[in-house]
Amino acid sequence: MSHSGGTWLNDHLLAACRAGEPHPRTGVPLAAGTELYDSDRLGEALDNADVGVVAVASVGVIEVARRALAAGLARTRAVLLTSKGFSPDAEGRVRLLPEALRDLAGDQGTAFPPIVAVGGPCKANEVAAGRWTASVFGCADRPVAEDAAARIRTDAYRADVTDDEAGVEICAPMKNVYAIALGVADGLQERDDTPYHDLKAATFAQALREMTVLSGLVGSRPETVLGLAGAGDLEVTGLSGRNKVYGSRIGRGERPSAALEAMAAAEQTVEGVPAARLARDLVDQRDAAAWDGLPLLRAVLAILDDDPDPVARVVAAVLP
Amino acid sequence: MSHSGGTWLNDHLLAACRAGEPHPRTGVPLAAGTELYDSDRLGEALDNADVGVVAVASVGVIEVARRALAAGLARTRAVLLTSKGFSPDAEGRVRLLPEALRDLAGDQGTAFPPIVAVGGPCKANEVAAGRWTASVFGCADRPVAEDAAARIRTDAYRADVTDDEAGVEICAPMKNVYAIALGVADGLQERDDTPYHDLKAATFAQALREMTVLSGLVGSRPETVLGLAGAGDLEVTGLSGRNKVYGSRIGRGERPSAALEAMAAAEQTVEGVPAARLARDLVDQRDAAAWDGLPLLRAVLAILDDDPDPVARVVAAVLP
Repeated sequence: MSHSGGTWLNDHLLAACRAGEPHPRTGVPLAAGTELYDSDRLGEALDNADVGVVAVASVGVIEVARRALAAGLARTRAVLLTSKGFSPDAEGRVRLLPEALRDLAGDQGTAFPPIVAVGGPCKANEVAAGRWTASVFGCADRPVAEDAAARIRTDAYRADVTDDEAGVEICAPMKNVYAIALGVADGLQERDDTPYHDLKAATFAQALREMTVLSGLVGSRPETVLGLAGAGDLEVTGLSGRNKVYGSRIGRGERPSAALEAMAAAEQTVEGVPAARLARDLVDQRDAAAWDGLPLLRAVLAILDDDPDPVARVVAAVLP
Repeated sequence: MSHSGGTWLNDHLLAACRAGEPHPRTGVPLAAGTELYDSDRLGEALDNADVGVVAVASVGVIEVARRALAAGLARTRAVLLTSKGFSPDAEGRVRLLPEALRDLAGDQGTAFPPIVAVGGPCKANEVAAGRWTASVFGCADRPVAEDAAARIRTDAYRADVTDDEAGVEICAPMKNVYAIALGVADGLQERDDTPYHDLKAATFAQALREMTVLSGLVGSRPETVLGLAGAGDLEVTGLSGRNKVYGSRIGRGERPSAALEAMAAAEQTVEGVPAARLARDLVDQRDAAAWDGLPLLRAVLAILDDDPDPVARVVAAVLP
């Protein structure tokens, strides 16, 4: 039995599903038998819950987790975390989300259940439509990830397993950052009606190299970057999505701040933008010497600050 | 001064360039001052040549090198090798091209000059048009690669440098093999008019993992796979090109052998097809135990043998 609990941010989505309509975001109906709970019934949703899934937008994770812990989340065997991002603590120290969640539980005098970081190339609408998807589950306690992968497995959806929780976590926000840079090459192609595939591919390779540098800062392993969590998710994020779209608007010649405002006005969140700035803090805090290996991250940050020549910034970062 | 020497395979291209037309393959005129030599004037082309460049289709490399060695190629300081592929010796033992070229020179009682393996995401038409391109030069004698990179550097074309010659060499034919698999997801998208991005991305990640396994068989390093030679070139090859096109025809539902015949009839060589079969021999000869980590290569081989369900083959290979 699947219990789907809303947050105050998306009770309206549950209302549509309850009315028998397809999920408004994917266009696909929920599986038969799914029980829906509005955000004020979180305790009921968690009653006898075996495994929890936290899948809210990164901006809402901490508050949702706070309420869920108060409502019994700590009694679950494991929590699958599909939300991704960085979360600064009260002193501004940047943490990955699992660290933030464990700190939060500690502050409440309890322990967060084992976290299974869910990563890899998973477009929600494709997963919902039952198209083939390979994800990766990362948990320090590997058998917990294996158990979760076995429970969730379908003919179309499978999860690889790793103990590199931090690796899965760092790749997810960073692929959004680098997808902005990948989009720039697509924007040039639209502007000039001719491919800039060499530039896009050079950007892709540089992004992977930098994800390896960043993964080192959080104690994760290069092979996670080479796999589904890194290369796989970067590939899918460079094919479509808001971060890539934002980059392509910049590549077509829009001023970065204006393009971002236009997207915000259309309720299109570009998750790579705050992630880039938090990644900057992370590097500064953990090892400023790592900046030598992060020219593309620096280029994206300059672009977000309305650098007058975004294309030149990307080119300078990815050409040897 | 740049000397451009033809082979018997492409003297007709030189004739067009000599007549002042753009290069028939790229649509771009040659740089002013380029001197052209037909294939019967190889000795003159090599007279006082400082650096040689071997850039013929892989099928012609050995014979062109044989003639070039006889005409003085061994006197050059270095040979840049943009041709890529596997070359079996007389006993059928599969070698990378540099090994084959060194063996060839040894048979002629001379030594092949230091080889600079040229890899990375470089579409010929984009390079010719002066669009930004990042390549990678691999030479066991790293300063030779650095010198070549410095000589060839332009505002738009730059080369990274590595001493991992074998890594650059193994990635190039294998990215053609795996681009066939990437194309299958694109073909499904065309067939159903809906994206299969999750599948394409999962295929991409699996291809990189397998390229790492194969690179181990030839003594190269994983970071070469993660960089321009591996991830970068696989990215660009999955965006366009004949190998991807062949895969997409299969994904749309064409019988693999029929699609290949149709492309051959249109003079469209699919380099990944012979490369896949030679890679099979390479694995069998070097470490058959490596097959456990190569399900996608096995899937491509089965597809080339007209497996009745190519999509299922790819899916089974890339879903955990």
